[in-house]
Amino acid sequence: EIAFIEHSEEQGELSEIWNFKESDIRELNNGEFFIPGMVDTHIHAPQYAYAGTGLDLPLLQWLNKYTFPAESRYKELDYAKDIYTKVVKRTLKNGTTTACYFATIHTDSSLLLADITDKFGQRAFVGKVCMDINNAMPQYKECTLESVEEMNRFLAELLEKKYPRVKPIVTPRFVPSCTKDLLMKLGLLVKKNDTHVQSHISENRGEVELVKNLFPDCKSYSEVYDKYHLLTNKQTVMAHGCYLSDKELKLFKHRGAAISHCPNSNISIFSGLLDVRNVLNHKVKLGLGTDVAGGYSASMLDAVRKALDISKILTIQTPSYETLTFKEVFRLATLGGSQALGLDNIIGNFEVGKEFDAVLIKPNVPASPFDVFAEDSCENIAKDIIQKFIYLGDDRNMTEVYVAGSCVVPF
Amino acid sequence: EIAFIEHSEEQGELSEIWNFKESDIRELNNGEFFIPGMVDTHIHAPQYAYAGTGLDLPLLQWLNKYTFPAESRYKELDYAKDIYTKVVKRTLKNGTTTACYFATIHTDSSLLLADITDKFGQRAFVGKVCMDINNAMPQYKECTLESVEEMNRFLAELLEKKYPRVKPIVTPRFVPSCTKDLLMKLGLLVKKNDTHVQSHISENRGEVELVKNLFPDCKSYSEVYDKYHLLTNKQTVMAHGCYLSDKELKLFKHRGAAISHCPNSNISIFSGLLDVRNVLNHKVKLGLGTDVAGGYSASMLDAVRKALDISKILTIQTPSYETLTFKEVFRLATLGGSQALGLDNIIGNFEVGKEFDAVLIKPNVPASPFDVFAEDSCENIAKDIIQKFIYLGDDRNMTEVYVAGSCVVPF
Ligand SMILES: [Zn+2]
Ligand SMILES: [Zn+2]
Repeated sequence: EIAFIEHSEEQGELSEIWNFKESDIRELNNGEFFIPGMVDTHIHAPQYAYAGTGLDLPLLQWLNKYTFPAESRYKELDYAKDIYTKVVKRTLKNGTTTACYFATIHTDSSLLLADITDKFGQRAFVGKVCMDINNAMPQYKECTLESVEEMNRFLAELLEKKYPRVKPIVTPRFVPSCTKDLLMKLGLLVKKNDTHVQSHISENRGEVELVKNLFPDCKSYSEVYDKYHLLTNKQTVMAHGCYLSDKELKLFKHRGAAISHCPNSNISIFSGLLDVRNVLNHKVKLGLGTDVAGGYSASMLDAVRKALDISKILTIQTPSYETLTFKEVFRLATLGGSQALGLDNIIGNFEVGKEFDAVLIKPNVPASPFDVFAEDSCENIAKDIIQKFIYLGDDRNMTEVYVAGSCVVPF
Repeated sequence: EIAFIEHSEEQGELSEIWNFKESDIRELNNGEFFIPGMVDTHIHAPQYAYAGTGLDLPLLQWLNKYTFPAESRYKELDYAKDIYTKVVKRTLKNGTTTACYFATIHTDSSLLLADITDKFGQRAFVGKVCMDINNAMPQYKECTLESVEEMNRFLAELLEKKYPRVKPIVTPRFVPSCTKDLLMKLGLLVKKNDTHVQSHISENRGEVELVKNLFPDCKSYSEVYDKYHLLTNKQTVMAHGCYLSDKELKLFKHRGAAISHCPNSNISIFSGLLDVRNVLNHKVKLGLGTDVAGGYSASMLDAVRKALDISKILTIQTPSYETLTFKEVFRLATLGGSQALGLDNIIGNFEVGKEFDAVLIKPNVPASPFDVFAEDSCENIAKDIIQKFIYLGDDRNMTEVYVAGSCVVPF
């Protein structure tokens, strides 16, 4: 926990109050700095296997051709262990101290993912995926009853482990993959257990049309989730929301539900350009997500850069648009994400009483992906180095990663 | 030079024809591959000093606030040597075997840039910038006569060095920085010396308006350059062209002039989204550029990814748009760039008789930025690994870089 934040001149007085010695102090070298650990509010762990491939199709075809065949393999625990270990290590190295994971429909390998995140010390929500409709690949779905029972088993077995920072999250894949019966039963389960919820909403035009046809009685996509108690303040995070109306955003605000903005995925699989400024103006909680493997990168720095890109493109097309600044977007990747996951009382920035989730940044590592020049003007040097890191840095600059004060990278 | 491209089974026969021993052969390890060296058709070497900062303003304000003050420092040769060395090393490490550089108005430090590129073995065009108008910063411009004389001196002194692969290029900054007199004299100089030309065109709406007002007699921005013999086949490369009309593209095609597409810059400083498909349909030569520091990244892989992003965003907004594939964009970063610079008879791909500009890619280096899985399906593995490298690789995977058969990285 962060005990205090004070100036180094007051060291003498502070050492008496807090009872530490000078030898307990670690001073950062010139140019080094800490950033709050980044929060990936939406990532599909099993899809990491094909990250950086299969980006030639829009959502519904992409799911059928690449995703479902890939996810169906996770009934094999050995395979799951290999990929899940790699994705947890990769995201930690990338400075993701908290991740909100979709797994697959398989309860046991989903429990294994939770176990691996705990073992490596990452803070996480892990969701076994629930889906009882899959016309494209009938062997990768569950029947309704099985889905609910397995979700119950997943919740019970995961909670039994008493992991300090890895929690379960109820995870209907998205409306087109779920019967009304399944949505209803998952909603009841959420109500009864007061669990977190994650799903997808309004990612792509074709999907929005499909949901309209599936639920003609509901006035919007958001209303479908809301009807089944799957839009909550304890805490629901819905990925994408590219095509949500202002009315739907008001419903999100009213319910306290959050949106995960996944800009790489939204571009890569042709989904849409989320108007983040409008979401923020509606005071809806918003974090960033990598959405691996619709998004090809498992790095939250990539999510920051792509969120800036989209905001700038909206500005090119509507010059009066109030572009997001790099500071605002970095805030979304940290504090915004913690709010979207209902963790902002624990993490998200450096405040007294919060747990120390942090990444040590060294701009001057030998193989650094960017150059810092001695000639940089002094007054702006701190701001400039942070900008250079955000635009050009990578895991080589992230030499130490901490979760709740424990060093989790290097492993 | 590439002597032959044959199958390894014919090794015995080939060794007799070409007179080599088995011990002369270097076999690549499993998963390793060569790509043609990448061609950065537009990069401002001096602006590397502030790459990754100052991305909050559109072109004309951005030039005044960040660019001109930064470039004015290059009258100091020591300063120039430091930054120019770093940008040449950085781009080589990033697999840029050929770069088309803007320097500054200073002849001597521009000659120094040429010397450094030669010393490190990079293939390059280097241009001393010519500009005789600068209302924002009068101390960073030349008078017309001086600009032409210095360009002449630059050409003469650079050619005198007889660098094998570093050549001068006539470089009017862009129309708004040049008087008619300067454009005319540079055009005559190009005609007389048969040199390459580079400049900027139609990057941003405000700039296009400005040129329209400055040259009311010309029907388009392209006509201004054309009027002064600055749109040539020997070879002109114009950066950006976001707002070129079809009529202007036809003029480009007719003259044989090329476009450098700089997607990172076009997004980062709010310029516009070039319709690359339309340029290609007009059979205009097109390469990619990083446009450091309007583009924050000095990596051509970033240019490839951002070009794909823009093409996908155009598809989101116009679903019938014929999206560029990753193969097409990779071709633009290599062969397309060589065509844009008039070097496609020498480099750009692996063909017998071309010089060996190449980058050795190792997907499995210990600190690789991406994971490759043994489980990847065999039939697609080569294609998948190349895709993963293009989307997720970086300089860590580029373990050896060759220019004309000489290893230039590691340095
Ligand atoms: Zn997703
Ligand atoms: Zn430029």
